[in-house]
Amino acid sequence: MIIVFGWGRSQNSLDDFAVTLSESISLDQELYQEDIRGSLAHARMLYKINVLNADELKQIEVGLEKIRSQIERGKFKFDPKLEDIHTHIEMALIEICGDTGRRLHTARSRNDQIALDTHLYVISRSKLLAALILALCEALYKQAQSHLNTLLPGYTHLQVAQPIRLSHHLLAYFWAFSRDMERLKETAKRASRLPLGSGALAGLNYKVDRDFLANELGFASIYSNSMDAVSSRDHILDFVSTTAVIMSHASRLAEEIILWNSQEFSFLVLADNLTTGSSIMPQKKNPDLAELVRGKTGRVQANLQNILTNLKGLPMCYNRDLQEDRFPLLDSYKQTSLCLEAMAKMIAGIDFKSKRMRQALEKGYANATDLADALVQKKAIPFREAHHLVGRLVRLCVEKDLSLEEASLADRKAISPHFANEEFYKQSIDLEASVEKKLSYGGTSLSSQKKQIEEAALELQKWKTY
Amino acid sequence: MIIVFGWGRSQNSLDDFAVTLSESISLDQELYQEDIRGSLAHARMLYKINVLNADELKQIEVGLEKIRSQIERGKFKFDPKLEDIHTHIEMALIEICGDTGRRLHTARSRNDQIALDTHLYVISRSKLLAALILALCEALYKQAQSHLNTLLPGYTHLQVAQPIRLSHHLLAYFWAFSRDMERLKETAKRASRLPLGSGALAGLNYKVDRDFLANELGFASIYSNSMDAVSSRDHILDFVSTTAVIMSHASRLAEEIILWNSQEFSFLVLADNLTTGSSIMPQKKNPDLAELVRGKTGRVQANLQNILTNLKGLPMCYNRDLQEDRFPLLDSYKQTSLCLEAMAKMIAGIDFKSKRMRQALEKGYANATDLADALVQKKAIPFREAHHLVGRLVRLCVEKDLSLEEASLADRKAISPHFANEEFYKQSIDLEASVEKKLSYGGTSLSSQKKQIEEAALELQKWKTY
Amino acid sequence: MIIVFGWGRSQNSLDDFAVTLSESISLDQELYQEDIRGSLAHARMLYKINVLNADELKQIEVGLEKIRSQIERGKFKFDPKLEDIHTHIEMALIEICGDTGRRLHTARSRNDQIALDTHLYVISRSKLLAALILALCEALYKQAQSHLNTLLPGYTHLQVAQPIRLSHHLLAYFWAFSRDMERLKETAKRASRLPLGSGALAGLNYKVDRDFLANELGFASIYSNSMDAVSSRDHILDFVSTTAVIMSHASRLAEEIILWNSQEFSFLVLADNLTTGSSIMPQKKNPDLAELVRGKTGRVQANLQNILTNLKGLPMCYNRDLQEDRFPLLDSYKQTSLCLEAMAKMIAGIDFKSKRMRQALEKGYANATDLADALVQKKAIPFREAHHLVGRLVRLCVEKDLSLEEASLADRKAISPHFANEEFYKQSIDLEASVEKKLSYGGTSLSSQKKQIEEAALELQKWKTY
Amino acid sequence: MIIVFGWGRSQNSLDDFAVTLSESISLDQELYQEDIRGSLAHARMLYKINVLNADELKQIEVGLEKIRSQIERGKFKFDPKLEDIHTHIEMALIEICGDTGRRLHTARSRNDQIALDTHLYVISRSKLLAALILALCEALYKQAQSHLNTLLPGYTHLQVAQPIRLSHHLLAYFWAFSRDMERLKETAKRASRLPLGSGALAGLNYKVDRDFLANELGFASIYSNSMDAVSSRDHILDFVSTTAVIMSHASRLAEEIILWNSQEFSFLVLADNLTTGSSIMPQKKNPDLAELVRGKTGRVQANLQNILTNLKGLPMCYNRDLQEDRFPLLDSYKQTSLCLEAMAKMIAGIDFKSKRMRQALEKGYANATDLADALVQKKAIPFREAHHLVGRLVRLCVEKDLSLEEASLADRKAISPHFANEEFYKQSIDLEASVEKKLSYGGTSLSSQKKQIEEAALELQKWKTY
Repeated sequence: MIIVFGWGRSQNSLDDFAVTLSESISLDQELYQEDIRGSLAHARMLYKINVLNADELKQIEVGLEKIRSQIERGKFKFDPKLEDIHTHIEMALIEICGDTGRRLHTARSRNDQIALDTHLYVISRSKLLAALILALCEALYKQAQSHLNTLLPGYTHLQVAQPIRLSHHLLAYFWAFSRDMERLKETAKRASRLPLGSGALAGLNYKVDRDFLANELGFASIYSNSMDAVSSRDHILDFVSTTAVIMSHASRLAEEIILWNSQEFSFLVLADNLTTGSSIMPQKKNPDLAELVRGKTGRVQANLQNILTNLKGLPMCYNRDLQEDRFPLLDSYKQTSLCLEAMAKMIAGIDFKSKRMRQALEKGYANATDLADALVQKKAIPFREAHHLVGRLVRLCVEKDLSLEEASLADRKAISPHFANEEFYKQSIDLEASVEKKLSYGGTSLSSQKKQIEEAALELQKWKTY
Repeated sequence: MIIVFGWGRSQNSLDDFAVTLSESISLDQELYQEDIRGSLAHARMLYKINVLNADELKQIEVGLEKIRSQIERGKFKFDPKLEDIHTHIEMALIEICGDTGRRLHTARSRNDQIALDTHLYVISRSKLLAALILALCEALYKQAQSHLNTLLPGYTHLQVAQPIRLSHHLLAYFWAFSRDMERLKETAKRASRLPLGSGALAGLNYKVDRDFLANELGFASIYSNSMDAVSSRDHILDFVSTTAVIMSHASRLAEEIILWNSQEFSFLVLADNLTTGSSIMPQKKNPDLAELVRGKTGRVQANLQNILTNLKGLPMCYNRDLQEDRFPLLDSYKQTSLCLEAMAKMIAGIDFKSKRMRQALEKGYANATDLADALVQKKAIPFREAHHLVGRLVRLCVEKDLSLEEASLADRKAISPHFANEEFYKQSIDLEASVEKKLSYGGTSLSSQKKQIEEAALELQKWKTY
Repeated sequence: MIIVFGWGRSQNSLDDFAVTLSESISLDQELYQEDIRGSLAHARMLYKINVLNADELKQIEVGLEKIRSQIERGKFKFDPKLEDIHTHIEMALIEICGDTGRRLHTARSRNDQIALDTHLYVISRSKLLAALILALCEALYKQAQSHLNTLLPGYTHLQVAQPIRLSHHLLAYFWAFSRDMERLKETAKRASRLPLGSGALAGLNYKVDRDFLANELGFASIYSNSMDAVSSRDHILDFVSTTAVIMSHASRLAEEIILWNSQEFSFLVLADNLTTGSSIMPQKKNPDLAELVRGKTGRVQANLQNILTNLKGLPMCYNRDLQEDRFPLLDSYKQTSLCLEAMAKMIAGIDFKSKRMRQALEKGYANATDLADALVQKKAIPFREAHHLVGRLVRLCVEKDLSLEEASLADRKAISPHFANEEFYKQSIDLEASVEKKLSYGGTSLSSQKKQIEEAALELQKWKTY
Repeated sequence: MIIVFGWGRSQNSLDDFAVTLSESISLDQELYQEDIRGSLAHARMLYKINVLNADELKQIEVGLEKIRSQIERGKFKFDPKLEDIHTHIEMALIEICGDTGRRLHTARSRNDQIALDTHLYVISRSKLLAALILALCEALYKQAQSHLNTLLPGYTHLQVAQPIRLSHHLLAYFWAFSRDMERLKETAKRASRLPLGSGALAGLNYKVDRDFLANELGFASIYSNSMDAVSSRDHILDFVSTTAVIMSHASRLAEEIILWNSQEFSFLVLADNLTTGSSIMPQKKNPDLAELVRGKTGRVQANLQNILTNLKGLPMCYNRDLQEDRFPLLDSYKQTSLCLEAMAKMIAGIDFKSKRMRQALEKGYANATDLADALVQKKAIPFREAHHLVGRLVRLCVEKDLSLEEASLADRKAISPHFANEEFYKQSIDLEASVEKKLSYGGTSLSSQKKQIEEAALELQKWKTY
């Protein structure tokens, strides 16, 4: 059918507002690689089913490569009046090889073409994001490996709760991000279904060879239903919701970097080249990158709402609303990839302050529970009395601004003779001994942590070969 | 305090990812007018409190006007390494007038400067959006005025329910949008509070004349608390949530345009220059603009979630996360203004098809209830029997694909002798008579509609003088 | 550690507002099965590692079964002052078997207990939702099977575009929902990781046998990191985002039911027992269930935003904010399951109106393109001229409110002699012939559709055995 | 029109799923007061226009009061099969006074009835929330008043930036919340428009006296358009978006309470009865209420998305989707009111630790900039050199873990002779002197703070009389 251009490809007569409202080229020029890749495959298929001859195929291949090269050298002119990336490349190809260029568009519609481009994009960007997460996981792994023996408070309610190893804390993020690689793998896998060959909606008047296309473009399967192929934006939902989860993890790690970088915590020092600071207050280092990651979280998660709202209640098949799928897709990739790169660099460059962490443990009385347990187990003091005695001692220490390690013999003795036994007391409040008690699988004892480091190494290995 | 640039204004040594992650100039260059306006006012205030002399003020004024002109002529070079609009203009001014340019930044921080720019932006854009809504309301009003006597079905559950006048339907949107003008007015009013003069957070070492600044920049009041002034993003929340509500209204109207433009409804024909179509099927007109408006709704509403998520749990005062306020603010303005312009143009250009609307009324049996009422009131038929009789007649008509108007005398008589009385029957199913019964204030009778048209005219008058 | 109850389990002294703010029992009583199942497994594990003896295990097993029975018979008293489901069951067990009941809580914390309960819930509810989707897919499949030869318009931009088979349209939803079963399967699979045995955060002082627990509870793997186990809400994110996607699909199908049920479309009649109607207008049937499904979409999708916002920037490990994970999890399951059941029932009960669909095809001139193609292919009329001629004919028909099928010979002849050839004309505009041309894989030709029906049957088979 | 109950009011034959999907009584029973109030006014209006006689009015009044009393004493039976609050009260009234009860429903539809109820609810709950915010503002004010002379660090990027007064920090929240009272006032004001008297959509066949109704129910104005009246959910959007903004403010304050309550900050101690703690670690107080407030933020903000998504693209007039407006409306009120009450109680009960705040100031070198300024201003040291010298001194102090106050004379002298001048040095690093320099309006000097306290008192006064 011939389109009568009230507006459309040649939007010359259109008001500025309508051109701006309806163009997508400012965004989808980022799909040029996918669009050209799809066109090359389509041309080869048309040659295979004898719609194009060898010479025409050659012309088209040369023409498309020329366009790709122009775009990559910044020599290609994008014009909002030409709406989208398909039209730009189509028009440029016609300019290069005339009617032959026009013939490329046999047995294809813009509806299955944009579906193809975004499927290819989802697949390739899922892999790129997985690679960035892998780098972040490696940075976490290396830091964890170096900090098997660094103790710090484990928090609940942001209150000092129990002593843990820093490796334990860092690996908690390692595993969260490794699940994200799994999600990306599934996203790419589910997107590996060829939409091309569906026409506008009802299929094509040609016996297009969709198996050939799928093979050429590396798709694992083919959409069984042409209407589904052009209407579905599931691949975008999958991708954008996966980035929302990734950012959820990144925001939590970013929050902890910001917190630990505060003067009050001082658990870490960020690399100079990733912070802003002050010549007068050299200890002051603004964790801008971590704050930006946290701030971008809302943006990426809002992109998910954007596409969900867009799709709500849309009838079959193509509706122009669907053009708005591009912003959440492309922006979520862009923001998430920047944030992941920043996180990996930040983690790799952190100087953790084990001395200050230990101070926080002691001043947080993280070993008080161990002391009470020792009274119960080794001195046969009833449970409640043990708790009462330790509570009194801690209260005294708080008043004097001392840790249990610093409590004077006199003070200790005044509360309980058991506390006066130097060996018993020291052993009972020993932080290293405390963490060693957490010997369950996944716990914070050294052996459990070493096992976990080994598992993490295997996980890294698995993803490196993905 | 001197900033040590690990990164920051001179980001030369920074990795690409960090420059891209941290720059905002690609967005906030749109704030250049506000930034220059704020700087001019600040310079004049510094002159008034004797920080600048007359010559220095003059240099700065000339310099800033030069920069403005460069930007407007497209001659100003924006560079992501210079991060934001403030730095761009500051650096350009120093290049123009050296140390004098540097002195402009006395008694001001980037924190209160960006707060100022976004406040000014919210105020001016609220007014621009209100003007666009006014134009849309005028278009609705004019169409309503022309369609006081066009009858169509009023729907509930998308089922034909009662006959209404088209003016009634169109004015329902008129009032919804007029409330949006009210919201924008309140948004602008609440944003009319000067943040400048707050310093980084704690106030300034200078007796800055904030009354002068407020007056110069047209603010109605001044932030009483400098920390609040630099931390609050309420003005952005107000603006973005108002645009979300506007888009909610626009999406509903867009939906009805799309629906009414379908071949099945055929209640309207859109202006040729705002649709795409087909030379073979001239009746086919794709309502792309309405679909784009509906599609953009998710985007604008997601911007609200973006900023809400960003602000969740942010401690005082400035955090770098806040830089991400720019996208939702600027994008919501841009998208909403495009959509409003599109809606006004579309409404103005619609050709409503009153004949087809009447057909839908008749084929929807919108007058069946009136016939039953007439049996009760004029023929003293008990309520349930009346309903039963009319139900039988409608069922028969449905089977024969006839309207009540088209029902044969024989068929009518077969069901009830009352239906055989031509005068009674015709009067009872008269659609004009039906709408005239809705005589309550706000209802669909002609007198009520005329009154409403008058009220709408007053409302328009009110906003024209705003 | 002994909890000092400023407030907490015994909230007697608490203000009402604080009890209401902090309780979760009004929601998480729905987790009673999971909680009891987890406690039974934990008790058996404690017996295996000799913390409980056989008699104690027996007492606990009997006690827990008694509690389960009380809850299921509505005899269990829930009290907001007892906060959550764990405390309720714990207290009830202590009441039943005294100190033995207390011993069940050895080597377990509320943090890993709630993590366990929600993991079990996600796994079981994913399976329940998959079963509901399977029923919906079966309904779609059966209708598709019955409507291989029902033609209707395929729409783009809600404009009649091309004729399609109804089976094609229905199967498009079939495939979308089948992908949701895949998502649910992955959600359940990724949630199949045991968190129990992690303690409050750092692991446990006991050599808990987590392999035994995993085996007892049917988990495929075990969390390698205790902090990750108690902090992660990934399983909830996966579940809630999957329900958001399911509802996206359901809302689109609901929209089409509402649309097709309108008097203007009249493509279907809903089963009486699933609609509300009117005795006077028997053709009027309000599609309330479809509207409720569409309306619930916002609720389920908002639940996703809820949990995403909650998790944004949360530091390790347990924070009380996490208690708010229950609402989105439980509500998304509840709403989605209701909606899926409604959709399956609605689809199964629909009476599709093939006659009206064909009318819409004809009045939408869906065969005009085929006529132009025929002129080009069989009569050697140049492309543009062919389009011009058909355009003129359609325009004439529109004016006279006729379909191409109804156009008079005189009118046809007046435009082109080719149109006067009865055989050529009839064949060219034949709708059955038109759909047969879409012979590509996935297209609307009968053979393609039959192939698709076979594939759908295989897909159903696959999921039935899942 | 008579409704044929396929399902609807008498849902006896309905499947359980459909009853559960379609009922709203589990939520909207909370609207009973509004529903009864509206019915009383409607009855009086019907009496005024002679539809009811004095005796009938009396019967209805007595009946409705009886129903109200039953509900308030917990004696009223709610049944999901009776769908909603209107039907419950209608049926109960008919049971009490027979046909007279039935006559109350003359000239009213469920569409304008639910619109009325939710308008009344928005108005009354806006006032209740404003009262809760007022209490919170009073708590903030009182604490601010008591802490004019408590110094603490002002933060940017969570880094110690400048010394401020605690009053300053607390009042920043005061002003944010006072803007929320303004928003609530506007919400109530815009909702003060009477929808009743609109009928199902087209108006009523009766000359209902809407002025009387508006007056009786306290509405400031009347909907001019009956379709707008029954379709608009603007009042709910306004209310829910206002609660989203309130929660945004509350979440920020909650975050700071959690942070300041950490052992590392130790800036405050929460009241015992609002925390959970440990007998062994008495300093440990879990800020559960603040965490719940932060956690509920996502829920309330998601409610806004819920209703926005619901309304997206809904055509006129009533659609069953709109029933889903109740959850976001009622839940947002409930959660927000609980959170506000918790915040007010928490703030009132906080014991701020001024000594620890001062320590953080000193260890954060918040006075280093002042020392550099003093070198420039009083010792004529060039800017960059001054910064260099102070930077060296701070670096030395950091290494030795000393504050500037604690730096030894020898160390100071070794860097610059100026630092050896005891008087100059002490004065330059004096924190009280530092805050006094911020003398701008809104700044942290004592005089500015006292002025702000006065303004806050006036603001409180203003709202007390609201």
